[in-house]
Amino acid sequence: MQYNDFDQTAAYRKLLALAPAGKKFDFGSRLDAARVEKSLTPIAAGLTYSWAAKAVDDGVLKILQELADEQELIGKYKALLDGEVMNTGEKRKVLHQLLRGELGKPVIHEGKNIGEFYRKELDRLGAFAADVHAGKIKGSTGKAFKAAVQIGIGGSDLGPRAIYLALENWAAAEGKLKLHARFISNVDPDDASQVCAAVPLEETLFVLVSKSGTTQETLSNELFVKDKLKKAGLDPSKHIVAVTSETSPLAHNPAYLDSFYIDDFIGGRYSSSSGVGGVILSLAFGPDVFRDFLAGAHEADKAALEPDILKNAALLDALIGVWERNFLGYPYTAVLPYSQALSRFPAHLQQLDMESNGKRVNRDGKPVAYSTGPVVFGEPGTNGQHSFYQLLHQGTDIVPLQFVGFTESQRGDDVSVDGSVSQTKLKANLAAQIAAFAKGSSNSDRNKEFPGGRPSSLIYGKRLTPKALGALLAHFENKVMFQGFVWNVNSFDQEGVQLGKILTKKVLAGNSGDSVLDAYSKILGI
Amino acid sequence: MQYNDFDQTAAYRKLLALAPAGKKFDFGSRLDAARVEKSLTPIAAGLTYSWAAKAVDDGVLKILQELADEQELIGKYKALLDGEVMNTGEKRKVLHQLLRGELGKPVIHEGKNIGEFYRKELDRLGAFAADVHAGKIKGSTGKAFKAAVQIGIGGSDLGPRAIYLALENWAAAEGKLKLHARFISNVDPDDASQVCAAVPLEETLFVLVSKSGTTQETLSNELFVKDKLKKAGLDPSKHIVAVTSETSPLAHNPAYLDSFYIDDFIGGRYSSSSGVGGVILSLAFGPDVFRDFLAGAHEADKAALEPDILKNAALLDALIGVWERNFLGYPYTAVLPYSQALSRFPAHLQQLDMESNGKRVNRDGKPVAYSTGPVVFGEPGTNGQHSFYQLLHQGTDIVPLQFVGFTESQRGDDVSVDGSVSQTKLKANLAAQIAAFAKGSSNSDRNKEFPGGRPSSLIYGKRLTPKALGALLAHFENKVMFQGFVWNVNSFDQEGVQLGKILTKKVLAGNSGDSVLDAYSKILGI
Repeated sequence: MQYNDFDQTAAYRKLLALAPAGKKFDFGSRLDAARVEKSLTPIAAGLTYSWAAKAVDDGVLKILQELADEQELIGKYKALLDGEVMNTGEKRKVLHQLLRGELGKPVIHEGKNIGEFYRKELDRLGAFAADVHAGKIKGSTGKAFKAAVQIGIGGSDLGPRAIYLALENWAAAEGKLKLHARFISNVDPDDASQVCAAVPLEETLFVLVSKSGTTQETLSNELFVKDKLKKAGLDPSKHIVAVTSETSPLAHNPAYLDSFYIDDFIGGRYSSSSGVGGVILSLAFGPDVFRDFLAGAHEADKAALEPDILKNAALLDALIGVWERNFLGYPYTAVLPYSQALSRFPAHLQQLDMESNGKRVNRDGKPVAYSTGPVVFGEPGTNGQHSFYQLLHQGTDIVPLQFVGFTESQRGDDVSVDGSVSQTKLKANLAAQIAAFAKGSSNSDRNKEFPGGRPSSLIYGKRLTPKALGALLAHFENKVMFQGFVWNVNSFDQEGVQLGKILTKKVLAGNSGDSVLDAYSKILGI
Repeated sequence: MQYNDFDQTAAYRKLLALAPAGKKFDFGSRLDAARVEKSLTPIAAGLTYSWAAKAVDDGVLKILQELADEQELIGKYKALLDGEVMNTGEKRKVLHQLLRGELGKPVIHEGKNIGEFYRKELDRLGAFAADVHAGKIKGSTGKAFKAAVQIGIGGSDLGPRAIYLALENWAAAEGKLKLHARFISNVDPDDASQVCAAVPLEETLFVLVSKSGTTQETLSNELFVKDKLKKAGLDPSKHIVAVTSETSPLAHNPAYLDSFYIDDFIGGRYSSSSGVGGVILSLAFGPDVFRDFLAGAHEADKAALEPDILKNAALLDALIGVWERNFLGYPYTAVLPYSQALSRFPAHLQQLDMESNGKRVNRDGKPVAYSTGPVVFGEPGTNGQHSFYQLLHQGTDIVPLQFVGFTESQRGDDVSVDGSVSQTKLKANLAAQIAAFAKGSSNSDRNKEFPGGRPSSLIYGKRLTPKALGALLAHFENKVMFQGFVWNVNSFDQEGVQLGKILTKKVLAGNSGDSVLDAYSKILGI
């Protein structure tokens, strides 16, 4: 396998040559029913990706295929699946896809079959959740658990939280909502204080999640919660279950009701498919729902092995993103799900993308001379239409858009007004926005003119089910992975979080010897 | 008053000349205790703004002052306060500051004293909330109200919701939480369905908010809620209060328990200080809390009249933002509050900023040749540290940052771990991040190197109280206003939302005659 910087490839030079025409390419006027039809690319689990409203023509797509081949994107994905050390900085394998099923060779590490280990932990956490639901595992006063609270931050929070919110309505409608879940993440004490005041502690099971077992925020919140439990006359060891690595201080620790394990091959932002997401989601919705979620993700992982970019949605989405980032010069991407259930999904994708590819050195630690990961932001539609869409339509700069939508609502509870139900209005707004952004509209009053030429993609499906959600998550994970391969960066470490930790410790030690830290400490009343 | 495009000013040319040196200016190495001290600029209500870690030196600040003078920023603000028609597209006055108190001449419109009208409505909504709290106003079965639900979208949702969340913990700690509030915004029927299923309908008061009384999402959600109320055997007219304009179909309508009024001089995204925010916030926390919030905002409005940029935080924040946007070339800004209570404040600022200044024509409808409003995004710290900060520290591009922090937590409920309480850890992280972004850190391993040179500002105060929150909101409103004056755009209309509405109606009518809309309608199952 060759690992070359992006600007060393022939495809890079060809795309550079296409860029001036690409910036002027009027895809809005080409956008018609035939182009929409041609663009439909299956993801998995009933989801489809459409690039019809993106600024690409056959010439660009041809070179993007060359780029995929030249940078060996599928080959690198296969190497990752087979257990090659793809997290070069930390010298680790990258195995989150293996949590969802086997697609490569069996991965053996130090004599241990990792796939088997993941399956065993999945079985264990499912059995644990079933025992909680059956009332076999109870709180310290003998009452059954009615609520679950995850304590974790970053990858131990954003993904699981976004997924919980995405499936809460679906589960309620399907009669599968077993335990209400809440989340504590911030070291701001108001976060834990508010959640602890809102749940019935006696009937609450806490899920403590930290891979290292040393995360400052999570350990502080653990002690916060333990303090509350003790003050309520409860035994914390009967109210907390841990998700951690086997080498962490939280592992095999009688302070917890049980412990579930991940390993160093599962990065935080990729850990929703492990016990990090699995324990809380299995508690909330039942182990079968979590397995359905994994099945949808596995299906998308499998589809991402296809070498033809026109048949591989994650790969194509990745390559079009690179075209927009490096050649059309757009430094951001907005994620706009037309589904209230996906309200926090953009926040998770923000982490997934920006923490993975917000890198200025290549996988060997050498600075790169081209742009890497973009800024990612977003809110659900139609809410965003009444908020920041003004800039998206009429601002001085172009922001590429990523729409997501579904034929049916989750709860099936609707009302007809002016001849249409709300779900139909939601979808009509989505269809209208894609056309409005692409085609624009002229007006003699320039203030009411829409320039158009604003590119968007669409992912759609029938209904946001656990399986569809798994496929949606895996689509974005694989998109980010392919982009990392194009840019030749390590998408699986996060050294950028370290300096802040070091300086925080200096401040807390009170002897930083740094006049700047002292000055800020003073004004903040530390 | 002169209204000139930004690139026609002498200051623009001078700043252009300073830009190359500005891009190389190593503010990180200049950042010391003296610079922090020099940068402290009072906002109001105990809040202070610091620009110490921004890429400005005395030379740049001098020209920014010239820019403020040349574009007559304070003069335009005064004209706005005096009731001049500043919303040029819609030919309307802009009077949200007047909701908080008088700072200019009395504003008379068609014989009506607008300030008196606003005060009367404030008194009315306060009296209404007090009657609800006293049990004088009850639901249709005679039970007192225990919950309030706002139905509104965009400006009728994001600001009030962000403020409610920002004060919920404070109110709980102070014994002032009178009614729990929830919000329905999205036309996605799952949104209303979930909220209706979660509240005790018999004891819930709905606040229906639409200035025009014709907002598609809000009217659909109103009928959704009315349907639920009727099915529960309740009389909707005893469970809904309206906030609207006097010319709307919702006004003076016996279908509602009462109605409170705003007028065309209050833009949606600036309406939190009116009944749009006032009714739900007075119901939730009591009218005095809402008045404290307004008092804080009024104090900040007053401070924003200062012509010396070094003594006017909103003006200076605006000008440094322009320097970053137009001369250093940064197309985005991240808002990073180190306060869980401000979890949705960035979403509100995203609307405030991007809808106000995401414009490509000037106030007279002529296209401008320079960049206007940036993309705004953000999440609370320390959560963001474990998410997108990787890109902020080590990405290939620079994202200007806006930190916010407080000395004390809201609930005062904390735990000591490793010698410090969580609130201290929260602040230590904030201090550490400012230094890390500005100064960076060298390392022989380039993957562990931090380039620094990443600019940030800081707003800090003692505690996030209603008054401090009002000042914080007004600071950003006034910042956005000043930037709009610099760019010579109309920050008070939003024509960019119109095309989507028109096309949506076409889709819903089912006879769009547009093959693109038809194609998307087909795949979305419309």
